[in-house]
Amino acid sequence: MVVEVSTKILVIGGIGYVGKFIVEASVKAGHPTFALVRESTLSNPLKSSIVQNFNTLGVNVILGDIYDHQSLVKIIKEVDVVISTVSFMQLFDQYKIIDAIKEAGNIKRFFPSEFGNDVDRTHIVNEGKVMFDNKVKIRRMIEAEGIPYTYVVANFLNRHFLSNLMGIASPSDPVIILGDGNIKSTFNTEESVAAFTIKTIDDPRTLNKTLFIRPHANTLSYNDLISLWEKKNSKTLKRIYVLEEPVLKLIQESPYPLNMGLSICLTTFVKGDHTNYEIEPSFGFEASELYPDVKYTTVEDYIQENHDCSPFYLNNLISIKNVQHFHT
Amino acid sequence: MVVEVSTKILVIGGIGYVGKFIVEASVKAGHPTFALVRESTLSNPLKSSIVQNFNTLGVNVILGDIYDHQSLVKIIKEVDVVISTVSFMQLFDQYKIIDAIKEAGNIKRFFPSEFGNDVDRTHIVNEGKVMFDNKVKIRRMIEAEGIPYTYVVANFLNRHFLSNLMGIASPSDPVIILGDGNIKSTFNTEESVAAFTIKTIDDPRTLNKTLFIRPHANTLSYNDLISLWEKKNSKTLKRIYVLEEPVLKLIQESPYPLNMGLSICLTTFVKGDHTNYEIEPSFGFEASELYPDVKYTTVEDYIQENHDCSPFYLNNLISIKNVQHFHT
Repeated sequence: MVVEVSTKILVIGGIGYVGKFIVEASVKAGHPTFALVRESTLSNPLKSSIVQNFNTLGVNVILGDIYDHQSLVKIIKEVDVVISTVSFMQLFDQYKIIDAIKEAGNIKRFFPSEFGNDVDRTHIVNEGKVMFDNKVKIRRMIEAEGIPYTYVVANFLNRHFLSNLMGIASPSDPVIILGDGNIKSTFNTEESVAAFTIKTIDDPRTLNKTLFIRPHANTLSYNDLISLWEKKNSKTLKRIYVLEEPVLKLIQESPYPLNMGLSICLTTFVKGDHTNYEIEPSFGFEASELYPDVKYTTVEDYIQENHDCSPFYLNNLISIKNVQHFHT
Repeated sequence: MVVEVSTKILVIGGIGYVGKFIVEASVKAGHPTFALVRESTLSNPLKSSIVQNFNTLGVNVILGDIYDHQSLVKIIKEVDVVISTVSFMQLFDQYKIIDAIKEAGNIKRFFPSEFGNDVDRTHIVNEGKVMFDNKVKIRRMIEAEGIPYTYVVANFLNRHFLSNLMGIASPSDPVIILGDGNIKSTFNTEESVAAFTIKTIDDPRTLNKTLFIRPHANTLSYNDLISLWEKKNSKTLKRIYVLEEPVLKLIQESPYPLNMGLSICLTTFVKGDHTNYEIEPSFGFEASELYPDVKYTTVEDYIQENHDCSPFYLNNLISIKNVQHFHT
């Protein structure tokens, strides 16, 4: 009789935006799932409800702090895989995780906090570059230590990039587009990113490689995206196209966080950083090709099913007034 | 004959939002001023013009990288004071600076990247807390290593907090206010923050203490701020007051970077984190009291002189539509 032992997963940053979905996908896939949570989280009304949900789901909530090295080593020794989903401001906290994984010596794979653009293949400038460079530094640190890893390039996440963050634009407003709107980008649901991530944890093909979540059905131009939204909502939006040069100037003049948001959008929607390279087996694989059995929500279905879905993301970063200034 | 030797200052992060002003103030005060700049900066069209300006001003632009330990130690040995103005995403890069200062052994004072709220005296939650906690960790690291320091608490900087970031609101729109608008906060120009910082570099009173830039003339309620703007612009704005509870909910539901901006505003405009404690000689001093000779621009003068000055900052984070939702 063969007893299959399911891979044990520790999520660090499980309370966060991406982390919540990873924890849920891990439990759903039947993995013994551990979430490291700071004790202070419990007294935070904004976060304790997430912990309560974890308890209901059967997640092993471990109170601790990655700055407590010995405890962290002890927890890591209990699991097989570590997935970090710490926020972009905590990227360097991950050197504490790397230290602990090194000392524990048992981890089969480490997923550092990525889940965005491929930071090794980018044309990004300004504040976005600072953040991307931080992820690059963590990648090089992991590789230098010889820790087994997978990097997950999830591209754009729907709840963030297909939203009208501040509710600024109305369906009667013109929609702002960067570049000519014909460059293809990829938009994925957080649930599918989590499902693909959990699916790959013990796949030898993605060991020390990158998993690119770039399904054909979710890779489309901004013009096509807007057309899908228009069809769903039976509306026709006025499209305003903004070129690279004035946006570079706007990035230079904008304070944080506008400069960061704009630089990520520019490199993606104008430089085409989601799609301007081929995925080669030497460095990685595309997720929906590796795992055709994983069901994911397509952009088209997402637009159909989500009334909050919006193509007005850029309107939150560039005001119509600024755009008009570009044209004078 | 007494030859006064002026303190040599190295600024790390001099290309950044705050750094530019610090470098200029240092040169203006007659200090031999060094700016560490990455070589890649020169090929960045967005940043090379700042470097050119430094050259014109007589700044010693040093090409280097804080990740090159030996070079960093060598540069640090040439100066007396190190001021870090790295971005909030690079806070942890400062442990490399701390390592190098330790090895160099000659630094009379280190200013870590702060220039905001006092991170040791705060009620902040959520994403803003993550960032504040990072600054706290760097503070404790400096203290543990016994490195002489001054922390500069600059409170809100005018170009950021007295702007209408995205140009979203028009002078005919209602202005959004957090809380009852009667809590006092402090708004300083970047130039005055830089001038006070340079003034304190070799003042023994602020050694291992915090310099609080909280001049009486710049400390006022949001209601008073709006009244000053209304007077200048001969307009009366409709004021919409938003209470703490719906904002906490909005923070919980908002993606980054909205949650961060909102949490910093909530802790300042509602909890009063700029002004809800007395400055005690045991931990610090107020800058305009220590240095009455430093001329600074008051909020009133800033509003008078700057046509871009705006009380609509919160309109960029909370849409009028959301506010209306709060009231139903």
